[in-house]
Amino acid sequence: MDSCVIPLRHGGLSLIQTTDFFYPLVEDPYMMGRIACANVLSDLYAMGITECDNMLMLLSVSQKMNEKERDQVMPLMMKGFRDAAEEAGTSVTGGQTVINPWIIIGGVASVVCQPNDFIMPDSAVPGDVLVLTKPLGTQVAVNAHQWLDIPEKWNKIKLVISREEVEQAYQEAMLSMATLNRTAAALMHKFNAHAATDITGFGIIGHARNLAQQQKNDVAFVIHNLPIISKMAAISKAGGNLFGLLQGTSSETSGGLLICLPREQAARFCAEMKSSRVGFSGAVGQDGGAGDGQQAWIIGIVEKGNRCARIIDKPRIIEVPYRGSVVSAQEGSNNNASPPEVQLT
Amino acid sequence: MDSCVIPLRHGGLSLIQTTDFFYPLVEDPYMMGRIACANVLSDLYAMGITECDNMLMLLSVSQKMNEKERDQVMPLMMKGFRDAAEEAGTSVTGGQTVINPWIIIGGVASVVCQPNDFIMPDSAVPGDVLVLTKPLGTQVAVNAHQWLDIPEKWNKIKLVISREEVEQAYQEAMLSMATLNRTAAALMHKFNAHAATDITGFGIIGHARNLAQQQKNDVAFVIHNLPIISKMAAISKAGGNLFGLLQGTSSETSGGLLICLPREQAARFCAEMKSSRVGFSGAVGQDGGAGDGQQAWIIGIVEKGNRCARIIDKPRIIEVPYRGSVVSAQEGSNNNASPPEVQLT
Repeated sequence: MDSCVIPLRHGGLSLIQTTDFFYPLVEDPYMMGRIACANVLSDLYAMGITECDNMLMLLSVSQKMNEKERDQVMPLMMKGFRDAAEEAGTSVTGGQTVINPWIIIGGVASVVCQPNDFIMPDSAVPGDVLVLTKPLGTQVAVNAHQWLDIPEKWNKIKLVISREEVEQAYQEAMLSMATLNRTAAALMHKFNAHAATDITGFGIIGHARNLAQQQKNDVAFVIHNLPIISKMAAISKAGGNLFGLLQGTSSETSGGLLICLPREQAARFCAEMKSSRVGFSGAVGQDGGAGDGQQAWIIGIVEKGNRCARIIDKPRIIEVPYRGSVVSAQEGSNNNASPPEVQLT
Repeated sequence: MDSCVIPLRHGGLSLIQTTDFFYPLVEDPYMMGRIACANVLSDLYAMGITECDNMLMLLSVSQKMNEKERDQVMPLMMKGFRDAAEEAGTSVTGGQTVINPWIIIGGVASVVCQPNDFIMPDSAVPGDVLVLTKPLGTQVAVNAHQWLDIPEKWNKIKLVISREEVEQAYQEAMLSMATLNRTAAALMHKFNAHAATDITGFGIIGHARNLAQQQKNDVAFVIHNLPIISKMAAISKAGGNLFGLLQGTSSETSGGLLICLPREQAARFCAEMKSSRVGFSGAVGQDGGAGDGQQAWIIGIVEKGNRCARIIDKPRIIEVPYRGSVVSAQEGSNNNASPPEVQLT
């Protein structure tokens, strides 16, 4: 499971917790903080939990940074983390910071829940459909962006993408990774989700398999569609199947939720994800928070089977267009609420 | 405060959490795991909390270790951590491991409490006495042990201590750091403790000052006695006041609790600490767990003042003798329950 569930000694309550920490993967420290926070919370959201009682922040400051670098970078990273926590309606109380060769950022999210507050990820049934709430391809986008400065790498992919497009894909990936899966968690309750997980290091197929193995019923997951940040599939192909993106093995950071939903509910789930009408009391954006207005896709089905998952031979690649420019620390997150939708084909 | 206290939405309950992670400071990976766990839990114990609902383990494996080293060291460290968690009556569910230049070990301890389960550290009154539940000097002992192999360092201290004594002091420091403060936490309730903190990185005077600043009443803490692992005071003097041990600034790892107790209760508190009669259901040792049979000392007084703390000019140094040999992963922790008490003078 994405989070651990600890039965408490008090009236049917459970303590649900998760932790994650990792190394910076984008250059913007503020966005990195937001991504780290969204990534930690995502494990709660995958269980349909929409509230978080407390977050702890885990930080290590790199010993290779000079004092000036440290004073510029670390406060921005912490601000990003705190802003995302605030958007999630929780706050950061406590944590630990150490000195280390590498920067580390992460956290611990904890919540005390009643039984109805969370959805155990084990009740998929044949006939369900699979919904994904963020596009794939963040790893490819982040790497392609680094390759702009590495000629031998860049030469391999420059025939299929321009520098401007790499820049836009990278911004899109950052925005996507920094987006909370909170709206999806709330809608899981509304539309009777049977199981869910979040997509991170093992790629979509790895997490789909993990989820399939946890099911009570004899089911298998079959994925037909792969929504991928625009042009990332082309880069992956040009690079000789880079990271296995089309096989679903490319790792994602702070990816979307993969949700098993009753077939008749899935289209409405996706429509409400996009409509931005959920709204949380603690959300930052006026329209109900930056988690709203998100695209979600029906990507596959649940059939009878032996708790495995696969992608069909020639999955349909859904090219997910880039949004506008990235949120900065100064601008806040309001301009993230209603992205312009330019369909790049 | 040593832990964060988060009021919950459920019937007067609070979520109390703490996290800590650091780098190995002893060579024995099993003991390092125990120490890391004891150190994390200590923040809960300082609030008089005796139960922990869940622990998460935070680990990083050093990229400089080869596969064989990793396979030997990391499981032992994790076993030490888990064994100490079991001794504390809790278990380790969840966590995160990454690759990093340095080994990191730490954790998160969480508990959901009723108001009576914890003691806010803010109610010391003039007339209280200060009790300390572990000796000082762990940093000096760990460093002296490293200096056995560094001639220029060793030459500075070899006139006041033998190699065998350094070895024994190091073992004593390891045992002390690996000891849970759980018994002390339980006795804080029994003897109406008014406030407490645990002694770690800021040394006894640093933590005493922090605690003094949090008090509701106009009090000051005055420390008269410094219980120190035998010969560590001499090493500190020989090295030119190494780490400021006698000024109380030498940092400790997983140190004891510093507790403000009503004067008439303090002697009985210390007697019960030593009698090993507390016993927890989850404890490992037959006599009620390795946390028992511990020495505690009355080290000072609480007087009227402006929320500060000081050590008197010539504090009495209490030389705390070494116990027997260290617990190993194979032997378990039973032989830790009733240490032979050899008074070295």
